[in-house]
Amino acid sequence: MGETMIGLVKDHRGPGAVLKEVPVPICGEDEVLVQIKATSICGTDLHIYNWDAWADQTVVTPNVFGHEFAGIVVEIGKRVTGVKIGDQVSAEGHMVCGNCKACRTGNSHVCPNTKSFGITAPGCFAEFAVVKASNIIHNDPKLPYEIACLQDPLGNAVQTVLSGDIVGKSVAIIGVGPIGLLAIKVAKACGAGVIYAVDINAGRLQMALEMGADHIINALETRTSEALLALTDGEGVEVVLEMSGNPQAIADGFKAAAKAGRISLLGIPTREVSLDVTNQIIFKGLRVEGITGRKMYESWYQMKGLLNQKRLDLASVITHRFRLDQYEEAFQLMEQGQCGKIVFLH
Amino acid sequence: MGETMIGLVKDHRGPGAVLKEVPVPICGEDEVLVQIKATSICGTDLHIYNWDAWADQTVVTPNVFGHEFAGIVVEIGKRVTGVKIGDQVSAEGHMVCGNCKACRTGNSHVCPNTKSFGITAPGCFAEFAVVKASNIIHNDPKLPYEIACLQDPLGNAVQTVLSGDIVGKSVAIIGVGPIGLLAIKVAKACGAGVIYAVDINAGRLQMALEMGADHIINALETRTSEALLALTDGEGVEVVLEMSGNPQAIADGFKAAAKAGRISLLGIPTREVSLDVTNQIIFKGLRVEGITGRKMYESWYQMKGLLNQKRLDLASVITHRFRLDQYEEAFQLMEQGQCGKIVFLH
Amino acid sequence: MGETMIGLVKDHRGPGAVLKEVPVPICGEDEVLVQIKATSICGTDLHIYNWDAWADQTVVTPNVFGHEFAGIVVEIGKRVTGVKIGDQVSAEGHMVCGNCKACRTGNSHVCPNTKSFGITAPGCFAEFAVVKASNIIHNDPKLPYEIACLQDPLGNAVQTVLSGDIVGKSVAIIGVGPIGLLAIKVAKACGAGVIYAVDINAGRLQMALEMGADHIINALETRTSEALLALTDGEGVEVVLEMSGNPQAIADGFKAAAKAGRISLLGIPTREVSLDVTNQIIFKGLRVEGITGRKMYESWYQMKGLLNQKRLDLASVITHRFRLDQYEEAFQLMEQGQCGKIVFLH
Amino acid sequence: MGETMIGLVKDHRGPGAVLKEVPVPICGEDEVLVQIKATSICGTDLHIYNWDAWADQTVVTPNVFGHEFAGIVVEIGKRVTGVKIGDQVSAEGHMVCGNCKACRTGNSHVCPNTKSFGITAPGCFAEFAVVKASNIIHNDPKLPYEIACLQDPLGNAVQTVLSGDIVGKSVAIIGVGPIGLLAIKVAKACGAGVIYAVDINAGRLQMALEMGADHIINALETRTSEALLALTDGEGVEVVLEMSGNPQAIADGFKAAAKAGRISLLGIPTREVSLDVTNQIIFKGLRVEGITGRKMYESWYQMKGLLNQKRLDLASVITHRFRLDQYEEAFQLMEQGQCGKIVFLH
Repeated sequence: MGETMIGLVKDHRGPGAVLKEVPVPICGEDEVLVQIKATSICGTDLHIYNWDAWADQTVVTPNVFGHEFAGIVVEIGKRVTGVKIGDQVSAEGHMVCGNCKACRTGNSHVCPNTKSFGITAPGCFAEFAVVKASNIIHNDPKLPYEIACLQDPLGNAVQTVLSGDIVGKSVAIIGVGPIGLLAIKVAKACGAGVIYAVDINAGRLQMALEMGADHIINALETRTSEALLALTDGEGVEVVLEMSGNPQAIADGFKAAAKAGRISLLGIPTREVSLDVTNQIIFKGLRVEGITGRKMYESWYQMKGLLNQKRLDLASVITHRFRLDQYEEAFQLMEQGQCGKIVFLH
Repeated sequence: MGETMIGLVKDHRGPGAVLKEVPVPICGEDEVLVQIKATSICGTDLHIYNWDAWADQTVVTPNVFGHEFAGIVVEIGKRVTGVKIGDQVSAEGHMVCGNCKACRTGNSHVCPNTKSFGITAPGCFAEFAVVKASNIIHNDPKLPYEIACLQDPLGNAVQTVLSGDIVGKSVAIIGVGPIGLLAIKVAKACGAGVIYAVDINAGRLQMALEMGADHIINALETRTSEALLALTDGEGVEVVLEMSGNPQAIADGFKAAAKAGRISLLGIPTREVSLDVTNQIIFKGLRVEGITGRKMYESWYQMKGLLNQKRLDLASVITHRFRLDQYEEAFQLMEQGQCGKIVFLH
Repeated sequence: MGETMIGLVKDHRGPGAVLKEVPVPICGEDEVLVQIKATSICGTDLHIYNWDAWADQTVVTPNVFGHEFAGIVVEIGKRVTGVKIGDQVSAEGHMVCGNCKACRTGNSHVCPNTKSFGITAPGCFAEFAVVKASNIIHNDPKLPYEIACLQDPLGNAVQTVLSGDIVGKSVAIIGVGPIGLLAIKVAKACGAGVIYAVDINAGRLQMALEMGADHIINALETRTSEALLALTDGEGVEVVLEMSGNPQAIADGFKAAAKAGRISLLGIPTREVSLDVTNQIIFKGLRVEGITGRKMYESWYQMKGLLNQKRLDLASVITHRFRLDQYEEAFQLMEQGQCGKIVFLH
Repeated sequence: MGETMIGLVKDHRGPGAVLKEVPVPICGEDEVLVQIKATSICGTDLHIYNWDAWADQTVVTPNVFGHEFAGIVVEIGKRVTGVKIGDQVSAEGHMVCGNCKACRTGNSHVCPNTKSFGITAPGCFAEFAVVKASNIIHNDPKLPYEIACLQDPLGNAVQTVLSGDIVGKSVAIIGVGPIGLLAIKVAKACGAGVIYAVDINAGRLQMALEMGADHIINALETRTSEALLALTDGEGVEVVLEMSGNPQAIADGFKAAAKAGRISLLGIPTREVSLDVTNQIIFKGLRVEGITGRKMYESWYQMKGLLNQKRLDLASVITHRFRLDQYEEAFQLMEQGQCGKIVFLH
């Protein structure tokens, strides 16, 4: 490997980022070095690029950011087993401690000692990245890199959709940004009944239809809960997947949920949400699931089965492809929201 | 049977109730007539007695109220099978339609067509009551009537405690009125780890200790969430059972919950609750369960096993026994809250 | 309604059946009368037609047999609510007591007091049939009768496939008669990973491929367990769905199951099966599920969502259509096994 | 530490063992060295001592054997975090790879790459033992060493009892050797309904009563399945825990299981078992769970909660205490079976 590489670096604690020459990261004993072939932009990356309050509290600088990737292993640490040079890989971005109660009981995704690839540790918007060997996911060589790099957000969608029963059930997906669009695909591939997509962006609602939503609701034009109750003869939706993070949308999601239903919350509101706990949770016998990350590693095995057997075709989710040096254009597009997934081909 | 009986009647839409002579109810084809032997007072009965906004919206008048009972069958309708004269019985108070999706998929407890014994239909504070045969529960003849009549609130506690894993887990029970006290007993009988009881009533906290709580927290003296986090080395409590209905206590319960934990909500707040959904639900990967009634009829079979084998001893939960004609004294005591369960021996 | 109708009657306790005039059945208070539009032949019907030991032990005569149907309601009993004349319907064939512990805890499908429509009670190979109102399933009017009548066996497949996790998992379906073929469709519609179909009938294996199986194994040519282990790099199959009832195939299914896997048993062997419990169940940490009937009524709601949203297209499962008076030809074909589902259009 | 220690060594591939001086094992980078304070004898140790076919196939020699222990950490490897010198500890004996699909999806207990402490790697019948740091369990310092060392078999009982619902359910424990006795304690502590204990050893049945069994059945005097069916009014037992490994007892356990019940298999038969799959699994809708080891590490956390809060009192399960040099007497006693748990105090 060369000793330096080009990487997209968050080098100051404010808006923007710079593409520059940085050292190739050193591969530790328990790590592997990956040559990056494709990456995609997460909403989190936009927060880092734009530098909001969350970023200021959380992100280390200077840092190569980006965490959604696919690549090929070019070096392995001396204690690594199970990964070899030439393997096509992606990785779980949550690097967890392995020792805590959460880690020891199947809940690594909420390990309190998590370091995050591309957020609190160096990431993948670069030619190479170092990854903890235990976090490596092997990809089927037949899977294109640009699809394989989508597994991180796809895993969010998979965990959200599958955090309860889905077969035959009515589903509302509130907020159809990239993860919401992926959730439509996942829900449909996993046997959901009627799928409702809700958003305030007409372009994304159009994409939702193309991804397989059965009905779309523009929350600017109609009240979400009223629309969903009307569409379900007043019974409400059996599975609500909240992916907008908008407090009003969240409250509406609870109102639209059916008795004995489920609401899974992935979208992150930036302020408290006022809820009618009595009528919308207790009297309904509702189940609420807070969703963060991906199940380590059930979500990844579920993806592997779905992708390798082509139960899911993600090609249409990718709306734009760029070179890494076009990052300014890419982030601007992401900011405007008129896109599905944006991929960098390295 | 005589043609009239003495019953405690809510005969007007305002505070109070009267004990008076009323017709013995007619036993329909699918019903049984039960001679009442013991009843107990639910918090709901106090709402009816005091006549608050909920009661005004919900309760029919005139009506014999009361819904927690044990008795003996004295007459059966002509289509009834499986119940016979002389059987010792209690009953599930939710009379459900049996035809709706909820009823057909194991969720009768949230049937939208429910009629409630003693609330929207005649109840048990009387010499006799008519009960839908499908709702009858057979009691072990060795179980005293005064214990058997507690199964309705015990079933609330059972459903709440068992709405997720409990064995070995730390548990906080917030609000130790009668159902909270029963929940302590149930949690302990079902293998819970350390049990924390929280209330603002010193007398009830003392009872909580006697029921088996390992620690008590007086929420007037210390902030619940801080106390619970301190007691759990900052990890939080794995299972929070919210039985107070107080909005501040509910928010505190969410704060005190551990990552990958569970909070089950039974206590009914009378206004909206503002929650930090991001930090207290999503990033924690928390599960929230809204609890209403009893699982029909899993909760009842769980109780049967626990009671018949003496895994649960409820005698100490009963703090007062009255004749039905002492109802004014009983409701006054209930109002003051210095009591466990109050039983009428008919 | 006319007072007589044409029905296919098992009128003696031996092989064969006769099409003859019989009285239209009387609709009781809790029942509805259905005009039959389409029926299909179950393997059970073939046992009744051929009259084997099971039939001799179980079946009442004389009896109109057949239990898979779709039709239209033409009369309702006086206590019936929720069903009306003109409704398009099918029905769950297990008529259960509703009072026993199984029925009261979500396990009606194993109610010990079950009567079976078309087996121990009059069935549907006729112009009309009486059905217990509580067992009625409403069909979407857009669903063709010939598809709607397949819900009974489809429900077997649905319960079997969904008796554990399926998304992304490798699945072997052993025995691809009609229910096995339906199981392929269901597994694929519900997000299964790679699907292996096993049979000894080359024609049915060809159909399995057409239904969506990814690989087929002819158990006459290769040992099932060896083939499946080879195809899975020695790890075994995560979900085995046993639908053959053949003792050797069952034992092979256990051998082919992966560690921490699941085997769901639907096919009914006629003699005991010798199993290596130590290595194939205990050391594997295997889960085994015995499957009978359909979950009442979760399986039906799952089907409704899958069918109404066209997640499942069953048209290709139907290979033959007959008039009821062609029953001899139909049963002969069924006997030979060169068919998918055979439907009678009434 | 001294450079040699006294250990009980299986030094040849035949019956017996010798107590002799051996080197203190070297603590690797990811390991800790534990001074052993108490150990207990597992049935597996008796197989090793007596040297049967299983031992000959599986066990390495020469090897210090024994795997149930409690002790105190006296040295830690340089990469170890989360364990420190002076910690009171026990350990999970299954040393797993961490990389395979089983390990990555919560099923480490069936990792195909498992090494077993005291069986295929050095164990604890000695003054010191080296243990993989990731397998260490921290004990409450208030827990006596002789109780703490029982967690390995207790964990088998915990996993078996809790491999499905238990609260209020009737339970039959077939085979009440030490793990069966522990299972009685666990079932009772976790809210089981009536508990039946079955064995052919009158002494152990007496111990079963003392541990809390509600009924005992001597399988030499009566047919187990008939006795259990008679005791349950013909309904069968809802939860069967098979801990004998006897093929006839296993078949009887299936016969005794209730419809929609569960049978969990822990006892290891040495030959195939012939089962009536049709009537005892399929028509019953039975669930069968194969149980091996302990859930890593849910079973351990469940134990921690139960033990630390004194929901379980194991003192009476220990019937004999020895010094390690009395091993011949201890193994002889174990062979005779007139004992509960036998503990070595080091």
